[in-house]
Amino acid sequence: MSLINLGTMAFDAIETPFDKVDRIVGGSGTYLAYAASKFIKPVQQISIIGNDFPEEELKELKARGVELDGVEMVKDKKSFFWSGRYHIDMNSRDTLITDLNVLADFNPIVPDSYQNAEFLMLGNLMPKLQLSVINQLKTRPRLIVLDTMNFWMDTAMDDLKTVLTRVDVLLVNDGEARQLSGEISLVRAANKILGMGPQYLIIKKGEHGALLFHKNHVFFAPALPLEEVFDPTGAGDTFAGGFMGYLAKTRDTGFENMKTAIIVGSAMASFCVEKFGPQRLKEISNDDIHGRIEEFVQLVNFDIDLV
Amino acid sequence: MSLINLGTMAFDAIETPFDKVDRIVGGSGTYLAYAASKFIKPVQQISIIGNDFPEEELKELKARGVELDGVEMVKDKKSFFWSGRYHIDMNSRDTLITDLNVLADFNPIVPDSYQNAEFLMLGNLMPKLQLSVINQLKTRPRLIVLDTMNFWMDTAMDDLKTVLTRVDVLLVNDGEARQLSGEISLVRAANKILGMGPQYLIIKKGEHGALLFHKNHVFFAPALPLEEVFDPTGAGDTFAGGFMGYLAKTRDTGFENMKTAIIVGSAMASFCVEKFGPQRLKEISNDDIHGRIEEFVQLVNFDIDLV
Repeated sequence: MSLINLGTMAFDAIETPFDKVDRIVGGSGTYLAYAASKFIKPVQQISIIGNDFPEEELKELKARGVELDGVEMVKDKKSFFWSGRYHIDMNSRDTLITDLNVLADFNPIVPDSYQNAEFLMLGNLMPKLQLSVINQLKTRPRLIVLDTMNFWMDTAMDDLKTVLTRVDVLLVNDGEARQLSGEISLVRAANKILGMGPQYLIIKKGEHGALLFHKNHVFFAPALPLEEVFDPTGAGDTFAGGFMGYLAKTRDTGFENMKTAIIVGSAMASFCVEKFGPQRLKEISNDDIHGRIEEFVQLVNFDIDLV
Repeated sequence: MSLINLGTMAFDAIETPFDKVDRIVGGSGTYLAYAASKFIKPVQQISIIGNDFPEEELKELKARGVELDGVEMVKDKKSFFWSGRYHIDMNSRDTLITDLNVLADFNPIVPDSYQNAEFLMLGNLMPKLQLSVINQLKTRPRLIVLDTMNFWMDTAMDDLKTVLTRVDVLLVNDGEARQLSGEISLVRAANKILGMGPQYLIIKKGEHGALLFHKNHVFFAPALPLEEVFDPTGAGDTFAGGFMGYLAKTRDTGFENMKTAIIVGSAMASFCVEKFGPQRLKEISNDDIHGRIEEFVQLVNFDIDLV
């Protein structure tokens, strides 16, 4: 029941209206690995790092059951670096700097030891790289989940559409679902996207929760209303990590279990935003996670016997 | 178990990106009466209309158990008129025309026959008028619900704060909750507003659902994802009407029942947006309503036994 996780391992500099950090470990693959490894081992990482990525972070990941055989270390280059500034509402942000560094030459190689993984998470990267990983696998995983973004819709739509025919679940935000489908209504957008390949579509709406579409079913998971969002960076990747980790742990990829997995992902994301970087994901216990999931139950639970 | 409903009865002209109507019956009090009367009779209306308000509409309301003793008809003036244009996302709109007409001199009088009502809905009007209605009641209703808007926060904040000390439930949207409290976080905003008087706060987020706050409890009700939103006008008032109607019918004003009432209100609002004006509220059957509520159950229902 292993999970392959393709994604970036990077440095971020983050400014919020309330605080800032200069250079902390980030990257979609990092957040996802920390979240998923709360549920499943091993997480088989595929990524690329430079000579500046901290050894302690690699040790920490290994200790949590994250295998690094698929993480290429480039000795004479630096890790991917991203810097951004959040607006006052914490829902939108401006990218200040994107230094691709090692990412410019990334050519992901699936190690032999990763073959026969049951679950594959394709983090938000160039669609050609995502496709390459699918093609390197001798046995198709039971479930392939794809993350992508508007940038690839603008620059590599044909490749993205090819990848879409090869995956089971697509994860995008509401703006991206609208762009990909050309539809304003999310219900219509979902119908179109489900015609492009994936059996399941998850539309993330940040503080407004997430929608899961499958055939003509729809499920809605709220985000937990929080007193303070300290740093939203990585919340979407952490959501995906909780979602994938829970599915891989339970080995049930049906619609009903996917609903629960989305609640688990939402709970994990609600921890992520409490501190800068993936710090909170390292601190929390299983009891913390169960307690947070119970808060989600309370949040949406109602009685209709009287109707 | 009667319900007094203070609100406008008016004409609207509405433009959406897809269609337009010139002059149809609208007003917060009208939408609310149509929605609430699906659950409770009588609805005791307090409003003001001009000589142009259609006799057939009054007959239709009466036939549904809406009492009109508190509706003043001004013979030489016209009814309140509002005209607006929705943006492409249907979530925001511009007001094009506001002709107060009869509303400029509105001085609501509670008829003797309305005394001893158990439920009071104070629709979005000048806070002084809302206060006047409360003061005219010889017995305080079991539950007083207040709707208001940013305009009154800008122009009559002191009066609004006085009214807030006299009501049980406040209904506002997210922007208004932030303005009233001076807090960006809705959780913090809720805590501040609950300190201003009301025991319950409902924050409406349009297509993103609604939140109910009470002490340190929070409940979230999603909006139903719809293929097409035809006309959002009156959706918030219809939500309030379903909410109030259900509470008045069940005569239970506890937190648990209020959660169910919010789902009922959300279901009613999801009908409202399907056609221009209150038309759909006149058409739907109790079976339609029950079916829609079942869709909400499906939308948020998940199993956590496996966690």
